[in-house]
Amino acid sequence: MQERLNVVRLSEDEKSVVILDQTKLPNHEEYLNLEDAESMWNAIKLLQVRGAPAIGVFAGYALAVLAGQIADLPRKEFLEMLQKQADYLNSSRPTAVNLSWALKRQMEKAEKCKENDCHEIARTLIREAKRIDEENLEMNRKIAEYGVTLIKDGDGILTHCNAGYLACLGYGTATAPMYMAQEKGMHIHVYSDETRPLLQGARLTSFELAKSGVPVTSICDNMASLVMKEGKIQAVMVGCDRIAANGDFANKIGTSGVAILAKYYHIPFYTLGPSSTIDFSTKTGSDIHIEQRDPDEIRSMWYKEPMILREVDCYNPSFDVTDHSLLTAIVTERGIVYPPFEENLKKLFQK
Amino acid sequence: MQERLNVVRLSEDEKSVVILDQTKLPNHEEYLNLEDAESMWNAIKLLQVRGAPAIGVFAGYALAVLAGQIADLPRKEFLEMLQKQADYLNSSRPTAVNLSWALKRQMEKAEKCKENDCHEIARTLIREAKRIDEENLEMNRKIAEYGVTLIKDGDGILTHCNAGYLACLGYGTATAPMYMAQEKGMHIHVYSDETRPLLQGARLTSFELAKSGVPVTSICDNMASLVMKEGKIQAVMVGCDRIAANGDFANKIGTSGVAILAKYYHIPFYTLGPSSTIDFSTKTGSDIHIEQRDPDEIRSMWYKEPMILREVDCYNPSFDVTDHSLLTAIVTERGIVYPPFEENLKKLFQK
Repeated sequence: MQERLNVVRLSEDEKSVVILDQTKLPNHEEYLNLEDAESMWNAIKLLQVRGAPAIGVFAGYALAVLAGQIADLPRKEFLEMLQKQADYLNSSRPTAVNLSWALKRQMEKAEKCKENDCHEIARTLIREAKRIDEENLEMNRKIAEYGVTLIKDGDGILTHCNAGYLACLGYGTATAPMYMAQEKGMHIHVYSDETRPLLQGARLTSFELAKSGVPVTSICDNMASLVMKEGKIQAVMVGCDRIAANGDFANKIGTSGVAILAKYYHIPFYTLGPSSTIDFSTKTGSDIHIEQRDPDEIRSMWYKEPMILREVDCYNPSFDVTDHSLLTAIVTERGIVYPPFEENLKKLFQK
Repeated sequence: MQERLNVVRLSEDEKSVVILDQTKLPNHEEYLNLEDAESMWNAIKLLQVRGAPAIGVFAGYALAVLAGQIADLPRKEFLEMLQKQADYLNSSRPTAVNLSWALKRQMEKAEKCKENDCHEIARTLIREAKRIDEENLEMNRKIAEYGVTLIKDGDGILTHCNAGYLACLGYGTATAPMYMAQEKGMHIHVYSDETRPLLQGARLTSFELAKSGVPVTSICDNMASLVMKEGKIQAVMVGCDRIAANGDFANKIGTSGVAILAKYYHIPFYTLGPSSTIDFSTKTGSDIHIEQRDPDEIRSMWYKEPMILREVDCYNPSFDVTDHSLLTAIVTERGIVYPPFEENLKKLFQK
């Protein structure tokens, strides 16, 4: 197996966080060595680091590194300053749940050992950041192990958007069975939807799979029907942003269309993600509000000149909701959930 | 109603052909005045004029204009030279059936009146070119009249690719009911798939509808499922490249996916085109060979820099085949054909 790229890591001397700058992909593989709070804030804001799990792991390391820089302060000032840094980092992307979660976990850890020397507190935060990182990797590894049982040698697998290691580290989530299959010496071929308008499939998914030696073909979103019809696809695997109590789930715009095509062509359709994605307070998909994004992402972003007349309206929803009736199974680190989802999702947490 | 743009027309003095340069759309509305064979050849080759019907009409006018320029030659040399010009124009795009059809029709016309004065022959060809133009407009108008009966006031209509007046002149084909609805004072709203990778929907369809005052929203191909789910679409109308004897039809890549979504959401799905598109020698869609195009259309065309790694394979089929079971009806200038298609397509030509 070829090595997977290091997306987020602590530097050797533990004094900075090193990230792969995802805004430069796929043309430039550039790493950023982040030492100060402002460049860390920018990294999240500018999407140099992206994907909920990757942001969480990054935030854990970032706060730990900043703690080391202020450890000569008296304890009270140290803890006040640390909270300020955490609040500052958190302001970079207020809607990123994993960001606030990781920062809160680190601040709680600091609180617990606040009687220690500040340098010792900083070292504790480094250890806690490594634990967040390892827990995430372990979660992905379990998704990979469960997921790989759903595919067989020679399969073609279609994926949409990027729920790979660039977003999730380790094995990724939707990609986890693909990398695990590769490790086991199975031969698979991935078809990656380019995923308009932000092209995460083209720029990120096909990039990371190719870099890791997994055979991958990039297609336009509207080609999924044909590759399915031609018998090239034996399973569809996608990530998920939120799973409702009944199994409906939100994911990148276009996911529901792929699910309908898979149903039509009798191809199993799976969503893969951590069990923390399941939100029992959301009863069904209709309770999920769909955010609208800037029309210029469709009209002019990426292009040499705009491709759509200024006076034409563009509709740019960021995601859609896939009905649970289209879903073969949900794969989490706790196991695989089959229908009836409402019942079986609850059982998942009773094990 | 706002005026539709003049895509192909004979100049006032009948000494040149004026076309809207479609390679400059949607950002620049530039007209080219073509007087010589080379610039006419280039116009077809470079897709400055595109779409089967538009190319046919253009070729008719082009050969007539060239005939006028050589009408001082002795008759034998005149006819030989005219044939050479026809062969030359035809070589610009050998697979364009309407191109060779129009040139052949003009040469047969010249042959029929070859005893006349050469200036008179040239004038005959101008009249014949106008007839080709008018016949096409009449065909589109009939498609519009049949098609408009399938929609009602307030409808949202989804279309894919460009089968509008930029390709077909007049009312276009897939767009014909939309323009006719507008003329009748009906209120409709069109959703135009951007149609990757060549973006005909974004660059051309949304352009021509907006320019003509038809309300239009541009969406990425992968958003069709959501706009259907949201109840925005009451009918899907697309063009067709070839219709097999059983009703299966080839059209721009992505059409079959839209048809499957329409079926899932119980939305009627229509293809519209001239009856000459029906090919009884093609029994079913599986007899249609699908051409593969340059991967760089997906990878790098339009963009400031490539969006997909060089070592990633891209699959770029130019069209797909939609199964007749997904089709509500076929709209032609001879009438509307409902299932069973095999039987009813035959009847269409027995009327």
